[in-house]
Amino acid sequence: MIVKDKHLTTIWYDNSSDKIKIIDQRLLPHEIKFVELKTLQDVCFAIQDMQVRGAPLIGITAAYGMYIAARENSDTNYLKDASIKLKNTRPTAVNLSWAIDFIFSKIEDLNKDNLLTTILNLANQMRVDDIECCEAIGENGFKLIQKLYEKKQSTINILTHCNAGWLATVDWGTALSPIFKAKRNNIPVHVWVDETRPRNQGFNLTSWELINENISNTLIVDNVGGHLMQHNKVDLCITGTDRTSSNGDVCNKIGTYLKALAAFDNEIPFYVAAPISSIDFSIKDGLKDIPIEERDSNEVSSIYGINSKGQQDIINIVPKKAQCKNYAFDVTPAKYITKIITEKKNVDPTTESISTLLE
Amino acid sequence: MIVKDKHLTTIWYDNSSDKIKIIDQRLLPHEIKFVELKTLQDVCFAIQDMQVRGAPLIGITAAYGMYIAARENSDTNYLKDASIKLKNTRPTAVNLSWAIDFIFSKIEDLNKDNLLTTILNLANQMRVDDIECCEAIGENGFKLIQKLYEKKQSTINILTHCNAGWLATVDWGTALSPIFKAKRNNIPVHVWVDETRPRNQGFNLTSWELINENISNTLIVDNVGGHLMQHNKVDLCITGTDRTSSNGDVCNKIGTYLKALAAFDNEIPFYVAAPISSIDFSIKDGLKDIPIEERDSNEVSSIYGINSKGQQDIINIVPKKAQCKNYAFDVTPAKYITKIITEKKNVDPTTESISTLLE
Repeated sequence: MIVKDKHLTTIWYDNSSDKIKIIDQRLLPHEIKFVELKTLQDVCFAIQDMQVRGAPLIGITAAYGMYIAARENSDTNYLKDASIKLKNTRPTAVNLSWAIDFIFSKIEDLNKDNLLTTILNLANQMRVDDIECCEAIGENGFKLIQKLYEKKQSTINILTHCNAGWLATVDWGTALSPIFKAKRNNIPVHVWVDETRPRNQGFNLTSWELINENISNTLIVDNVGGHLMQHNKVDLCITGTDRTSSNGDVCNKIGTYLKALAAFDNEIPFYVAAPISSIDFSIKDGLKDIPIEERDSNEVSSIYGINSKGQQDIINIVPKKAQCKNYAFDVTPAKYITKIITEKKNVDPTTESISTLLE
Repeated sequence: MIVKDKHLTTIWYDNSSDKIKIIDQRLLPHEIKFVELKTLQDVCFAIQDMQVRGAPLIGITAAYGMYIAARENSDTNYLKDASIKLKNTRPTAVNLSWAIDFIFSKIEDLNKDNLLTTILNLANQMRVDDIECCEAIGENGFKLIQKLYEKKQSTINILTHCNAGWLATVDWGTALSPIFKAKRNNIPVHVWVDETRPRNQGFNLTSWELINENISNTLIVDNVGGHLMQHNKVDLCITGTDRTSSNGDVCNKIGTYLKALAAFDNEIPFYVAAPISSIDFSIKDGLKDIPIEERDSNEVSSIYGINSKGQQDIINIVPKKAQCKNYAFDVTPAKYITKIITEKKNVDPTTESISTLLE
C-alpha cells in the first residue's frame, strides 16, 4: 500500500545484502523506522514486543526467522529449538505455528547444503502467497460491500476493530483489503476506526493506513461502536481474526466480541476476514479451546504518543498501587458472525460450510 | 469517603469564609487540588470542563452556582440568564435542570433580602439530601450483593463502568455505594474497573476511590469486560446513570450499552444505581429522546498522565490529520437492565414499576 506516495510492504528480503527488513510498527504513526532482523533473538523480540504484529505477518516473520536461525546454525536440533522459541513468542495466532510447521515439513530430508536456500525460497514464496491471498480476500469482501452499495446508493459506513490492514500482513491486509478494493472501484466508503486499547492499533495503524490511502475515516474510542450502530451510522462491520475454530468461533483482538454483540442486536452484518491459514481445523470449540494470551500490564497502565514538547513519550495513566490485567484477545461465538471472508470464497460460520474450504 | 485517612466530600460550603469549594477532579489520581468557585463563570467552567462531573454532583454544583449567581446580582433576569447558562453546560444529565428548577420554584415570591439565604440553605439542604440518598442507594444495592454472596459464599466480582462513586456525588456515590456498604459489612468483593475512555474516569477516579478505601480492584481496558463475563469472572455489573427514561432506558457513560449486552448474553445481572432525581419521567423512550452530548475531539486524541520525567503531561495519540468523534453517552434499552436501584427501593426497568417511585 501507499505511504507518502511510495509503495511499502511490512517485511522483505533484500537480495543484494542478504538482509530481512521490517517496519518497526511500535513507533507508528509518529515515526516510520525500518529495522533489520539479524539474529533469531531479533526475530523473537520483534514478534513478542510487537514490532511486527497481525496473525498473517507474524507467520511470515517466523518463516524468515527459520531462515535466520538456519544461517546461525543449520543443525537439526538448533532448528527445532529455534522453532519452539518462535512458537512461544505469542500463543494465540495460529499462523505462527502453521508457518513453522510448513517449513519443517519441507526440509526434513534435505542435506545441509540445500537447507538455507530452500528455507529462504519457502519464506519468500510464503510472502508472495500472503500478498495474493490478501488481495483475493479483498476481492471476495468487496463483493459484499458492493452489494450493500447497490441497495443503499450512498456512502457505506464500515466499523473495524484493531488493525487488520496491510500492516498486519505483508500487503493489502485482511479486514481492510475489501475497503482498499472498494476505494479502487470508486465505491464511497467511510470507516469508523476503533481505538483498540490497550495497544491502540486502531488509532496508531488503521487510521494511518486509511489516511495514507485517502480513505475517509473517523477515530472513536472503543466504547462508541454500540451507540453508532443503534443510530444507523454503521452499515457493516469487518474485523480480522487471529484464530478461527472449525465451528466458526472467531478469536480476535480483545473487544471484538462486544462489537459483534452490538451488531447482532442492531441487525448489522458482522464479517470476519480470515486467510484459510488462520483457521484451526483441530479446534472444535473456540470459546473453550483457543488459548488467550495475557500480556504485560504495562501496556494497560501506560500509553505512547507525542508529549506537549513534541517528543515521543510514554505516560502513566493509572493511580499508584493500581493492579491491571491485560487479556489480548476474546472469542466471538459463531452465531454472531454473518460471514467469514476467505481467499477462496465467503463461507458461513458453521462446521459444514467451513469444511468446504478444505475441498 | 476516605482519602489518606481523612474524610472528604466533593463539594462544600465554608461558612466562616462564605466560600464554595470543590476537588478539581481533572487532576486525579495524580494530584488532589481544592478549588474555590468564585463566580458564575467559574461554576460553568467547572461543570463544562469536568472539574466536577457525575450527574448528582453537577446538580448540587449547579445549585451552589445559583447561590453564587445571586451573590453577583440578585435581579430576576440575571438569575434566569444564569440558570440558562448553567443548564447549557452539559445537556445529558437531568439532575442539572432538576436542581435549578427546584431552586427557582422556591424563590419565585421572595423579596431580595431573603433570596441569598434561601438559595444557600436550599443548596446546603440538597447537598445533605444527596448524601442521604446515596447512602440509601448503598443499602438497597447492598441487599442484592448480600443475596448473591449467600449463594456463592466467596468473593463477589463486580464490574463497573465509568465513575459513579463518591466523586460523582457529594459522598458515597451511586453504583459504588453498595460496594462501600459491602466492604463495611465484611462481604468480600473485588471490582473490575473499566478504563472508560476517553476521559478515563474508571482508571482516574473509580480505582483511586477503591484503593483509598482498601477495596480489592483490577483495572482493565474497556474491551475486556465481555471476555471476563464469558469466563465466569463477573458475578454482577453495577453502573450509574445520567438520565433514565420513565420506561427504564438508561442513558449513561458511552460504552455502558456494550457491557449490558455482554451481561445479558452471559446471564449476569446488570444493575443501575439511580437517584430518583436522575429519572426523567417526561421521557418515554430513552433511545429516541435523550439528547446525547458530543464533546471536544481533543478528549479522544490526547490523554493526561505522568510522563517519563515524572511530570503531569498530555500526549497526543493519533496521527496528524486524524478526525475524531466524541460521543459522551449511550442508551441501554430497558430490556438489558436487571433492576434499577434507587434510594426508595429497587424497581424493575418498566414503566409500571418505575411509576411506583412517585407514590
